[in-house]
Amino acid sequence: MAGNSFGTLFKVTTWGESHGPAVGVVIDGCPPGMELSGADIQADLDRRRPGTGGPAASPRKEPDRVEILSGTFEGRTTGTPISLVVWNRDAHSKSYEHLRDIFRPGHGDITYLKKYGIRDHRGGGRASARETVARVASGAVAGKVLAGRGITVTAYTIAVGGIEAAGRDLDEIGNNRLFCPDSEAAALMAARIEAVKKAGDTLGGVVEVCAAGVPAGLGEPVFAKLDGELARAMMSIGAVKGVEIGSGFAAAAMTGSENNDPITPDGFASNNSGGILAGVSNGQEIIVRAAVKPIPSIAREQDTVDLDGKPRKIKIGGRHDISAIPRIIPVCEAMVALVLADFLLLQESVAAMAPRP
Amino acid sequence: MAGNSFGTLFKVTTWGESHGPAVGVVIDGCPPGMELSGADIQADLDRRRPGTGGPAASPRKEPDRVEILSGTFEGRTTGTPISLVVWNRDAHSKSYEHLRDIFRPGHGDITYLKKYGIRDHRGGGRASARETVARVASGAVAGKVLAGRGITVTAYTIAVGGIEAAGRDLDEIGNNRLFCPDSEAAALMAARIEAVKKAGDTLGGVVEVCAAGVPAGLGEPVFAKLDGELARAMMSIGAVKGVEIGSGFAAAAMTGSENNDPITPDGFASNNSGGILAGVSNGQEIIVRAAVKPIPSIAREQDTVDLDGKPRKIKIGGRHDISAIPRIIPVCEAMVALVLADFLLLQESVAAMAPRP
Amino acid sequence: MAGNSFGTLFKVTTWGESHGPAVGVVIDGCPPGMELSGADIQADLDRRRPGTGGPAASPRKEPDRVEILSGTFEGRTTGTPISLVVWNRDAHSKSYEHLRDIFRPGHGDITYLKKYGIRDHRGGGRASARETVARVASGAVAGKVLAGRGITVTAYTIAVGGIEAAGRDLDEIGNNRLFCPDSEAAALMAARIEAVKKAGDTLGGVVEVCAAGVPAGLGEPVFAKLDGELARAMMSIGAVKGVEIGSGFAAAAMTGSENNDPITPDGFASNNSGGILAGVSNGQEIIVRAAVKPIPSIAREQDTVDLDGKPRKIKIGGRHDISAIPRIIPVCEAMVALVLADFLLLQESVAAMAPRP
Amino acid sequence: MAGNSFGTLFKVTTWGESHGPAVGVVIDGCPPGMELSGADIQADLDRRRPGTGGPAASPRKEPDRVEILSGTFEGRTTGTPISLVVWNRDAHSKSYEHLRDIFRPGHGDITYLKKYGIRDHRGGGRASARETVARVASGAVAGKVLAGRGITVTAYTIAVGGIEAAGRDLDEIGNNRLFCPDSEAAALMAARIEAVKKAGDTLGGVVEVCAAGVPAGLGEPVFAKLDGELARAMMSIGAVKGVEIGSGFAAAAMTGSENNDPITPDGFASNNSGGILAGVSNGQEIIVRAAVKPIPSIAREQDTVDLDGKPRKIKIGGRHDISAIPRIIPVCEAMVALVLADFLLLQESVAAMAPRP
Repeated sequence: MAGNSFGTLFKVTTWGESHGPAVGVVIDGCPPGMELSGADIQADLDRRRPGTGGPAASPRKEPDRVEILSGTFEGRTTGTPISLVVWNRDAHSKSYEHLRDIFRPGHGDITYLKKYGIRDHRGGGRASARETVARVASGAVAGKVLAGRGITVTAYTIAVGGIEAAGRDLDEIGNNRLFCPDSEAAALMAARIEAVKKAGDTLGGVVEVCAAGVPAGLGEPVFAKLDGELARAMMSIGAVKGVEIGSGFAAAAMTGSENNDPITPDGFASNNSGGILAGVSNGQEIIVRAAVKPIPSIAREQDTVDLDGKPRKIKIGGRHDISAIPRIIPVCEAMVALVLADFLLLQESVAAMAPRP
Repeated sequence: MAGNSFGTLFKVTTWGESHGPAVGVVIDGCPPGMELSGADIQADLDRRRPGTGGPAASPRKEPDRVEILSGTFEGRTTGTPISLVVWNRDAHSKSYEHLRDIFRPGHGDITYLKKYGIRDHRGGGRASARETVARVASGAVAGKVLAGRGITVTAYTIAVGGIEAAGRDLDEIGNNRLFCPDSEAAALMAARIEAVKKAGDTLGGVVEVCAAGVPAGLGEPVFAKLDGELARAMMSIGAVKGVEIGSGFAAAAMTGSENNDPITPDGFASNNSGGILAGVSNGQEIIVRAAVKPIPSIAREQDTVDLDGKPRKIKIGGRHDISAIPRIIPVCEAMVALVLADFLLLQESVAAMAPRP
Repeated sequence: MAGNSFGTLFKVTTWGESHGPAVGVVIDGCPPGMELSGADIQADLDRRRPGTGGPAASPRKEPDRVEILSGTFEGRTTGTPISLVVWNRDAHSKSYEHLRDIFRPGHGDITYLKKYGIRDHRGGGRASARETVARVASGAVAGKVLAGRGITVTAYTIAVGGIEAAGRDLDEIGNNRLFCPDSEAAALMAARIEAVKKAGDTLGGVVEVCAAGVPAGLGEPVFAKLDGELARAMMSIGAVKGVEIGSGFAAAAMTGSENNDPITPDGFASNNSGGILAGVSNGQEIIVRAAVKPIPSIAREQDTVDLDGKPRKIKIGGRHDISAIPRIIPVCEAMVALVLADFLLLQESVAAMAPRP
Repeated sequence: MAGNSFGTLFKVTTWGESHGPAVGVVIDGCPPGMELSGADIQADLDRRRPGTGGPAASPRKEPDRVEILSGTFEGRTTGTPISLVVWNRDAHSKSYEHLRDIFRPGHGDITYLKKYGIRDHRGGGRASARETVARVASGAVAGKVLAGRGITVTAYTIAVGGIEAAGRDLDEIGNNRLFCPDSEAAALMAARIEAVKKAGDTLGGVVEVCAAGVPAGLGEPVFAKLDGELARAMMSIGAVKGVEIGSGFAAAAMTGSENNDPITPDGFASNNSGGILAGVSNGQEIIVRAAVKPIPSIAREQDTVDLDGKPRKIKIGGRHDISAIPRIIPVCEAMVALVLADFLLLQESVAAMAPRP
C-alpha cells in the first residue's frame, strides 16, 4: 500500500486511471524560486503522446494539456506542493466492456484482481500506460531543476525487435521517429515494425539513457545507491523487464582488467562503470539501459481464462501501439530525472553541512 | 544521507566497516512470536564466509559468529527491534596503509572521497563487501519469516566468465562449490577461474534467484512494484551491474505472441513474466537474475591517480577472491528475502482490511 | 522539504493555496472494495465551511464541493490512489494586495519568506487555513474506514476564551453552534465571542477529541507511538499550540496513586491514560485535547515591519473569523481519524503475521 | 511496525530492552568530517544515570559506558552509519519473576501483550525507560552537530508535584539536583519528593526545553512542521502526557491582541509563539514544555489483574525513582536536538538549491 510516491526530498505522488476523469501528480519538494509554466512541461508530454511514434504508434489522439493547480506564484515555484493535472478526454469506456470478465495475457488484469479483490477493467485502469503521463509531467519539472545545474538527461532507442543500433550519434535522435542515434538502424527498425504489425504481433526493444553533467557524489550507500534507485525507477515502468548500468550484463563475461576503468590525471579512461562506483556517481556520464518487452495487447488469438477460471480465447483489436518504443522514451528520461533531482537535493544537504573552518 | 535502511514494515538498518570493530544490523518489524536463535542465522553466514567458495575464494578465515543483542525473549521474537552483531576479528589494517593516498580502479575509493570529503581507506571501509554480512544475517531472519508461509528463496550460479549453465537442476547446487545447477558447466567454470587466477585477473558471472511459494498479490504499484524493489535490492549489492526479471533482456528481441504467457485453467503455460505482472506477483515462481562484475582488485598493474591527481601504477595483491561468485549467492538470497518479507507484511494489511460482510 | 504527506500505509498528500485554482489531496493506501462517493466526504466539508460557526464565523461563502478524480470504480475504492479536489471559488486576490510587502503578526508570512525566499501573500498562501479542506476531505475517507471497524471519532469544544465546559454530554454537541457538550457553557462562550468581536479582537479555546471503539494494540513503539503521532497530527494544525492525552498537564501535579488507572476484571477503573499506555492503545476511549490559539488576524492596530524591516502599523479588516473554533472541529476529527486509520492498517499486518499453529 | 527509527536525513534507529545484553542506536546521516569520540556522548549519559537525581533517584548504579562501533575514522565521522552500544550490566532479571503473570497499572505491560501476543516482563522490556539511553546517546551526537552551527539546547525542571518555578535563571540549573532554574522552588520540590517517597508514592512535573541560536526557516509544512515534530518527539518519551509550544495551553484563554507577538525592526517584541510560526522557526528561542506523569511503579497497593483476568493486588517495591524528573532532562534535550538536526539538514538542502543568479 501507499506505493504511489517516489523520492525523498524531491517527492512525487501520482494518481489516476486510464478511464477516470484525469491523471495527475503532486510534486513535493521542488526548490522554490524556479520559473515554471505549463510550457515547460508540455513539450515532454507531447513527445509521449500517441501519434508521435510513427509506425509503432496507435492512431489515438490525446491532447494531454497539463494544468498547474498549485505551487507557483507569479510564475515561480514557492516551495509548496505543485499539483499537475491532465484530463482524460479520449476515454471510450464502452469499448472495454468485453474485457470485464476476462484476463488479458501479459497484463496486470489478473494480478490486480488477486491483490485488491476488485478491478477497473477499462483499459487496464491504474495499470495502464496512461499512468506515465504523470511521470513525464513531473519528470519535466525535475528536468528543469537539473538543467539549472547543467545536467541533461537524454534517452534514445538502441534496439527494436532484435535490430540494434550500431552507433551513438545523439544528433541523429531527432531525425527519425524512433529517436534512434543510428539512422540506418532506425530504418530497419521501422521496417520490422511494419512487418510485425501486419502479422498482428508486437515488438520490444532497448532504451538507453545518458545523463551528462552529473556531479560526483550522488547516491546514498548502501541501500539507496544511485544505481539501485535508477534500477527501481526504470523497472517501475510497466513494460521494462531488465535494467543495466554501464557494461551491465556484458561485465559478467569480462575480466577485471577488461572491465575496470583506468584513472588518469584527465579522468577515467573508459566508462564501463556507467558513471557509478560503489553506488555513487563519479562525475562521468551516467549510462542506464532498459529492456522493454513487447506490448502484450496483440491482435492474434491467445489462450486465457475468465473470472471463473474457464478457458477462453482472446484477440485484442483496437487502437494499440506495436511497441512501447518510442513513446516510452520520455518516460525513461522522466524517471532518471526524478532520481537525479532527489539525489542532488540530498547531496546538497551533505555538502552544506560539511564542517566549517 | 540515511541510505542504510531497507524496507518499510520489515525494515533493516545496517552498519559497520571492513576494519571497524564490528558489522551489524537492526531488524525492525519482524513479526512477534517467531522462534529465533543464532543458529537460524549462522548457516547463511557460513555460506558467505571466505574459504567456502572453492577455487574462487581467498584464503582468509573469518569466523563470523552472530550475536543477538535484542528483540527476543525466551527464544522467541517479541516484535521489538532485533539487533545482530558480528565482530570483525581478522582485520589487518596495516596492510592497507599503502592505499591511503591512492584510488583503486573499479572501487568506491574515489566516489566516497568526493561524496563525503573523508575516506576510510582500510579495505574499502563501508564500501567493502564485508558490509554484506549484515545483509545475510538479516536476510536469514526474513527467510525464516517466509519459510513460515511456505516460501523458499534459492540462488545459484548460471554463468561465470562467459561459461553458462545449460540446465537448471537445483538438486545439483549442493554438489559443486560454485552452487551451479549444472555440474558439467560448474567444472568448466572452476577451470576458467583457475586459469584467470594464474593470469592475475578476476571474473564476473550471473546469479539467478528463484522464489517459490510466493502468493499472488505482492507488490505496491506504481513505484514500489515487486520487480522494481527487487531490482533496487539486487543492484544495491556492490558488484551487481544489471538485473532482469523473467525473460528480461531477451524479451526486447521477442514478439508479443512469443513473450506473453498464456493463461489456462491450470495456471500460466509459461513464465516469461518471471512471476510478476504489472509489478505484482502472479503466484508463479519469481525469477530474478543479476549480472555480477569481475572483482576490481586485480594483481595486474593498472593506471590510477593519487589524492593529488598525479598518475600512479597500482597492483593489488593479497587475499582477494577471483570472483564474487559464489560468495555473493547468499547475499542475493538475502536481498530477495528482505523484499518479499516486506511485501508480505504489506499485503497482509491489505488482505486484512478487505470489507467485512 | 516534502512535508506534505502524512501516514505510512494510509497516506495522504495535500496541496493547494488559499488563492490558487484549487486545493486537494491524494489518498494512497485506502483499503479496496469500500463504497465511497462524494456524499461521504461532503458532510464533513460542510461542517468546516465558513458561515457554519455561528457567532465566531466570517460571512464568506465557500461551497466547497468535493470531486473524486480517481481511485474508485463503480462506486467502490479500488486500492489505487484516490484524488480529491475542491475548487477555490471565492478567492478575492485583489483584497490582499496591501499585504504584499508587510508581515502580519502571528502568521507565517515572515517564516515562509525566510524559509523559501518567496511568498504568496494572498490570504496566507499555503499557510492559510484553507489548506485544512484537504485534511477534512481525506479525514472523511479515513473516518469511513474506521466506521467499518466500529470506530467513531468525535471532536467538541471544551473551552473558548477561558470559559470552560463543565460537563461532557456528547448529545448536546449538535444543539449549539460551538459543538460544545455543555449548553450552558456554550451560551457563555457565544456571548464572550460577541463581546470580543466588538472589541476588534479574537479568541482561542480548547478542543477535545474522543475516539471510541479503538481496539487495543495500535501504535508503534518507540518513536511512532500512538500518542506521539496524535500529538504531531494535532500540532500540525495551524492554530494549535498544545496537545495533551488523558490527564495531560494535570498529571504533572498528581501522584502516581492518583494518576494510575487501576485494572479490574471489567476493565480499567479510570482513564487518566487517555486510552494509551506506553504508546499503544489499551482498548479504552482515546482522549486528546488541543489548545487553539486566538486567530492572529485582528481588527486592532498592531506593530509590525515591512520587507525592508521598516516599522509599520497594521490593522486587519475583512471577512475573518473571531475564533478557529468551531470550524477547527472537523479538522481535529480528521487528523485523529488519519492517525487511527494508518495504525489500524499497520496493526492488521502484525496480527495477520502472528505465527500459525 | 518499524517504529524504532526517527528522522529523515539525520535518522536514528534504536534497539534494546531493559534486561537484554545491551541497548544501542544506529545514527544514519550524521554529517561527515565531524570530530567525535565517546567522551562527547558520555557526559549526557552520565546526567541520565540513576544516582544523579538527588532525592528523586533510585540507588541503582549503571555505569553506562558508550562504545562507538562504526562510522568514525581517525576520530572523525565518515558519513557512514554510527553504531553506538551501551551494555546492560546491572540487570537482575530474577527480581522481576513475580511480574511474569501480572500487569502493572500505568505501565505498558498490558498493551504490549495485546499488541504483540508476547511480552518480556523483565523491567518493562522494550517499554522500559532504559530505552532512553539510546536517545540520549544519539541526541549527544545531534547536539554536537547543532553546536557546530551555534545552536544550544537546554532542558530544565519548571514544576514538580504542583510546585512551580517562578523564575528562569538558567545559571541556577547546575546548582541544584533537579536542574531547576529557580533554587527556591527547587528546595520545595526536593522536600515534596521526600514527603511523597515516605508515603510510598511518586510525582510528576513539567520540563521546559529552550533551543537558542536556531535559524529561521526550519520545519516542513504542512505535516512535518517544526512544532508538530517536536510534539511527536516529546510525546514519544514514555512518561510524557502533554506538550506545548510557547504560550501553549495558556493561549487558549488569551485574545489575539494578547497572544500575537508584535514585530519590530529589532525583532519580535515577545515570544508567545515559542519561536515557531506556521510550523517554521522564526529565529527566536524555541520553547517547548512537556508534562511528565508520575512514575507508575509505586510502593502502595493497587488493584490489577493477572493474565487470566483474575483480580490481583500489586505493590511495587525495589529500586525505583520517585519521579522521572530530573533523569528525563537529558532525554528531553536529546529529542529536541534530534528534531533540530534533522530539520537543519533538510533546510540546508532547500537553501543550497535556491536559484543561482
